[in-house]
Amino acid sequence: MNKFLELKTISLFLFLISIILVFWCSDSTHKSSDAEIPSKPFGIVIHGGAGNMERANYSVEQIAAYKERLNAALTKGYSVLENGGTALDAVEQTIIVLENSPLFNAGKGAVFTNNGLNELDAAIMDGSNLNAGAVAGVTTIKNPIKLARAVMEKSKHVMMIGKGAEIFAAEQNIEIVDPSYFRTEERWKALQKIKMHEQNKDESYLNNNYDYKFGTVGCAALDINGNLAAGTSTGGMTNKKYGRVGDVPIIGAGTYANNNTCALSATGHGEFFIRNVVTHDISALMEYKNLSLKEAANEVVMKKLVQQKGGGGVIGIDKAGNITMPFNTKGMFRGFKTSDGKSVVKIFRD
Amino acid sequence: MNKFLELKTISLFLFLISIILVFWCSDSTHKSSDAEIPSKPFGIVIHGGAGNMERANYSVEQIAAYKERLNAALTKGYSVLENGGTALDAVEQTIIVLENSPLFNAGKGAVFTNNGLNELDAAIMDGSNLNAGAVAGVTTIKNPIKLARAVMEKSKHVMMIGKGAEIFAAEQNIEIVDPSYFRTEERWKALQKIKMHEQNKDESYLNNNYDYKFGTVGCAALDINGNLAAGTSTGGMTNKKYGRVGDVPIIGAGTYANNNTCALSATGHGEFFIRNVVTHDISALMEYKNLSLKEAANEVVMKKLVQQKGGGGVIGIDKAGNITMPFNTKGMFRGFKTSDGKSVVKIFRD
Repeated sequence: MNKFLELKTISLFLFLISIILVFWCSDSTHKSSDAEIPSKPFGIVIHGGAGNMERANYSVEQIAAYKERLNAALTKGYSVLENGGTALDAVEQTIIVLENSPLFNAGKGAVFTNNGLNELDAAIMDGSNLNAGAVAGVTTIKNPIKLARAVMEKSKHVMMIGKGAEIFAAEQNIEIVDPSYFRTEERWKALQKIKMHEQNKDESYLNNNYDYKFGTVGCAALDINGNLAAGTSTGGMTNKKYGRVGDVPIIGAGTYANNNTCALSATGHGEFFIRNVVTHDISALMEYKNLSLKEAANEVVMKKLVQQKGGGGVIGIDKAGNITMPFNTKGMFRGFKTSDGKSVVKIFRD
Repeated sequence: MNKFLELKTISLFLFLISIILVFWCSDSTHKSSDAEIPSKPFGIVIHGGAGNMERANYSVEQIAAYKERLNAALTKGYSVLENGGTALDAVEQTIIVLENSPLFNAGKGAVFTNNGLNELDAAIMDGSNLNAGAVAGVTTIKNPIKLARAVMEKSKHVMMIGKGAEIFAAEQNIEIVDPSYFRTEERWKALQKIKMHEQNKDESYLNNNYDYKFGTVGCAALDINGNLAAGTSTGGMTNKKYGRVGDVPIIGAGTYANNNTCALSATGHGEFFIRNVVTHDISALMEYKNLSLKEAANEVVMKKLVQQKGGGGVIGIDKAGNITMPFNTKGMFRGFKTSDGKSVVKIFRD
């Protein structure tokens, strides 16, 4: 009996020791893994517009030039995040690089309206508090994304349009430029070409070569504090009339960020993106239907929009740092860079 | 054995007869009920703005005047539906009645901007095909809801702003008026009062008496063909600056309709309604989380917006004809009329 008790005590003792060891080990493993990789993921994803781009229509030099600018934008935003900066700063800085490049339809190099102007729209959203800022129809703001951020942070409003937005910009010392700053010969020729086809009532050209509806830049980011942000900037649609505004400055259509789900920026035939409230719909599918970012974005971009023939794409990042970049056109200027060491820049489908 | 077979045959025969009778009866019951009440429900719901209205601040005559106009608007829209008209026509006709009344902050009687203008926004959406039209910052359009509908039906765009929208209006023979048409003495005095408090830096007044942020008209309808539509029209916020645009012309924020779920129009502190993509969020909660219209609208208006101190309300109707009219302010001009004979017009909470 005594021997039995002794055995029982020893077993119990050994059992307790093993339990302690197991906990101690698992704890130390945890700590050592913490030291090896960053505890919190972060990353950035961008687009420079979707459209029916085909490799055959681009020279090697053109492709290299686009990829160089996309990489420069990603590098800029990623360095902000790497140094502990906010998703909001990363988004703004990245979009400024793209706005300042004549290659993209935003800021310098924006497309022309029917009456030969460049009318710019932009929006930015902070997923941590759902604050947002947007501007539409501005013609003298060098970097519309800066003005969108000022609307968010320095006014009580979310959206400002036209001359009023420019008066606010001047008060906030946002850089004003002469409208001629935005002009590039390529965009000017594109306007003349469409006007010619319009005069000739060449519906087949206007319906099939609809890249003039696209081209926008956008960015979404996750920072090391788990905050998400998104922004979008555009020159709109070549030959647009009547003060038309697309999806870009519409919160929930072209731009949306919510720490509960993801940050998104869209590009495409804006009217379809407004009607389908595209970026909020993707977020809602994640929040209410438990879809992953990829599943939700595919549901909207590759099913709903395809059914309606709404061409375009979306880029997004979720709170875990997962990236998605679906598009239903032939191509989309796009790329991402994440803290797990992955980095991609692509234009065409392959 | 023979007797047993005979009994079996008779039983089988009686069983079949009874089955036929049951089906015949249930079918005829169905038909007779069809003849008694309309086969398809229809209805209309409106608002004339939410705010911190208290009964003590209104005279009996004022209350009667508001109720008379709300009833007139409901009667107009309901008669369209009763005669087999579309939800879209009902929404437009109803909103025209409210825009033409100086009592509401839309069309005639719109509030004044900081620089003494009336800048009007409106939107309309067709739930059967997700088509939508919106205008913002127009100053000479007698009935902005008509222009929103023309944008939806006569252009390839969804949203037009400012002068461009007015050029389109002229081309579409939409009635243009002199800006002085919109002026009412009451709204003019309201602007002077706020400016005085602003000059005196009376933050307490500006933060607590925030009815100047509200007041909008809206309508949602279900027609006998099961189609839903919604529309909203506003003069915006008293003393607004910088071409500020609120939630009204933002599809998914102030206005949304989708035959899969419901039709909604919002009123309140627009910035919060944009950030929360309020009307699309209610629709998404119904579609993706199977909430009822009432549950979904309460979740957004009475929880999410209340947490953020975003004052306002929403009116809506779902595809079965159910109505909801939640608001988190002290009052909301509101009413509905449905094909089951129910009709309500209210202003205050009680």
